[in-house]
Amino acid sequence: MLYHKKKFNNIYNFIHKPTLSLKKKFRLESGDFITEPSIAYKTYGKLNKKKSNAILICHALTGDQYAAGDHPVTKKKGWWNDLIGKEKVFDTNKYFIISSNILGGCMGTTGPNSLNPKTNKIYGLNFPEVSIRDMVSLQIELVNSFGIEKLFCVVGGSMGGMQVLEWGINYSNRAKLLIPIATSYRHTAQNIAFHEAGRQAIKADPDWNEGSYIEAKSFPKKGLAAARSIAHITYMSEEHLESKFGRAKNEKPLSQIFEGSFEVENYLQYQGISFVERFDANSYLYLTRSMDRFDLSEHFQGKLEKSFVDNESRWLIISFTSDWLFPTSESRLIVNALMANACDVSFVEINTNRGHDSFLVKVPRFYNILKGFLSGVPF
Amino acid sequence: MLYHKKKFNNIYNFIHKPTLSLKKKFRLESGDFITEPSIAYKTYGKLNKKKSNAILICHALTGDQYAAGDHPVTKKKGWWNDLIGKEKVFDTNKYFIISSNILGGCMGTTGPNSLNPKTNKIYGLNFPEVSIRDMVSLQIELVNSFGIEKLFCVVGGSMGGMQVLEWGINYSNRAKLLIPIATSYRHTAQNIAFHEAGRQAIKADPDWNEGSYIEAKSFPKKGLAAARSIAHITYMSEEHLESKFGRAKNEKPLSQIFEGSFEVENYLQYQGISFVERFDANSYLYLTRSMDRFDLSEHFQGKLEKSFVDNESRWLIISFTSDWLFPTSESRLIVNALMANACDVSFVEINTNRGHDSFLVKVPRFYNILKGFLSGVPF
Repeated sequence: MLYHKKKFNNIYNFIHKPTLSLKKKFRLESGDFITEPSIAYKTYGKLNKKKSNAILICHALTGDQYAAGDHPVTKKKGWWNDLIGKEKVFDTNKYFIISSNILGGCMGTTGPNSLNPKTNKIYGLNFPEVSIRDMVSLQIELVNSFGIEKLFCVVGGSMGGMQVLEWGINYSNRAKLLIPIATSYRHTAQNIAFHEAGRQAIKADPDWNEGSYIEAKSFPKKGLAAARSIAHITYMSEEHLESKFGRAKNEKPLSQIFEGSFEVENYLQYQGISFVERFDANSYLYLTRSMDRFDLSEHFQGKLEKSFVDNESRWLIISFTSDWLFPTSESRLIVNALMANACDVSFVEINTNRGHDSFLVKVPRFYNILKGFLSGVPF
Repeated sequence: MLYHKKKFNNIYNFIHKPTLSLKKKFRLESGDFITEPSIAYKTYGKLNKKKSNAILICHALTGDQYAAGDHPVTKKKGWWNDLIGKEKVFDTNKYFIISSNILGGCMGTTGPNSLNPKTNKIYGLNFPEVSIRDMVSLQIELVNSFGIEKLFCVVGGSMGGMQVLEWGINYSNRAKLLIPIATSYRHTAQNIAFHEAGRQAIKADPDWNEGSYIEAKSFPKKGLAAARSIAHITYMSEEHLESKFGRAKNEKPLSQIFEGSFEVENYLQYQGISFVERFDANSYLYLTRSMDRFDLSEHFQGKLEKSFVDNESRWLIISFTSDWLFPTSESRLIVNALMANACDVSFVEINTNRGHDSFLVKVPRFYNILKGFLSGVPF
């Protein structure tokens, strides 16, 4: 999909491999269709003969399929590199790890800045709204393509955890273990509000060009960076932010007061800037919206416990003490709903000071609990 | 100061009365000077013969001098209209209320979008950085102009509370009672980070024009609206946001997914839009920065308790249970520092679900406590 010369962002002229292309119309929850979508993915380890050792990793809002090893675009290590590999928690000597870019994303899977094969134009805002369920439906196509009947485990944090929950509702018979981490069964008004503030920042950037920035050869860098900054604050705990930066001032003179004289500002600006080099603004709009609209209880008259009737998977729910975006109380609601159905559920709250982002951090107890849970179950 | 035709914002062609103009250079904490600054203010009630019944009201970041009665620009009631008036808490039958627009503001007091009398050009980013202490120093000039030796009370919430704290440090002998509400002696890294995200949104708007938007006849409406949205989330409690909106969806079809299909989004967009009609973007940059840099302990080697040595005022500190921007723990730090100096301090935490904005809400216990504290002291 080399539809755009490298101008502003190197994600648009990169060919992601491998990619599965569906030669059919893909039906969305809304009733809309996407013509012949592609799903870009990575695998680690080997699928065994029984096809019983596969673990599906679901990435979060700004993650992608490059969970381990070197990221070909950013040149950094994958976001779960410490977890995936030989003799690591997701041991590639034992397991076959599948990690795919979600529907609506921007690392090779069909999203708002893909070409619409029907029109040969970039979708832009003509891309249909996609739901968390749609993302999972596309993952199912990928899993089917491997001939895998039942995954050993589906695991993910934050928006990845929402995908795990959807697996639990709709494909419980196709996943032995389910591990939703630092997540929620639906966004609160505050969650939605933070996302909305970010979306406003993107749309306020004239380089967004009403979503048609690729055609206009522009890119809403500033708006996307601002959106990232807002979100980033919500990913960190107050305690961690304070211990990392406090009120430390850098050495810029006072006269440059709008250039960031506090270290925390420079960090946020850096985070924002490095983010726009690897992410797409329309994807950000669509994916945040998918999270906002996600509500596991919606199909059950708002009764979460009805979501889990006859659920046959084994569950491990994990939350982090300092996560104020998806606090432990949210995880407890899921645990209670599972327990109301006598499901097989374990629940652990991990003591950390790293906020929502804890699921991306090497926290020994977190790693040990994951390892223990996996190794206790034969595949 | 009719320097700009009504184009985009009606705050620039409004003459605020009364105004005190200083016929001298005004020295700032930084060592810089402002030439002949003006301070716009309002008074309510009458100053008694002893000049002992004056209460100074300090407004918050986006407030102004129009604390009571009709606001001439917005046509709405003042932000403390329920508190100020005959037989109200700040009883204008008894007290003489002074409310002035802060230095750096945009309702008539000299700020970044005033004319610099030395150059006859708009200051823009040539406006010097101003501190909370500078704001208080200018208030002192106003108080002096009335011949008031000692104020009966200085009161304010949030950034207004920071001004009250500065009064307590530098002019304790000139204020009998001090009431800082929902405030902090310095910003945390998270406070700074939220402000920084807002500033990024403003600067990301090309209509900001590097701060020279008045000359360019533009106005960074979208950026300022986004900044306001971010801040607004932090002013509300999660509980209040949830009870007010929850996940209520409005009736827009799904196809308009970027037009705000959740009520909470529409509310935020409305808040942002109505705000830009009455506030100036550069003022927002300067004033948020003043808050970020405020640190009462800075002149005392970080030791807050040293700030209050020999303090002779009577203090009432008020916090609100649901305020997560300036939580009760911040107020306790001030209370403890005052107590370490055996100062006369009362402290009340009010149970509300309205978040930081509680100080702008008619909460009966809050009102009763203010009234009781005031009426217990003769003037």
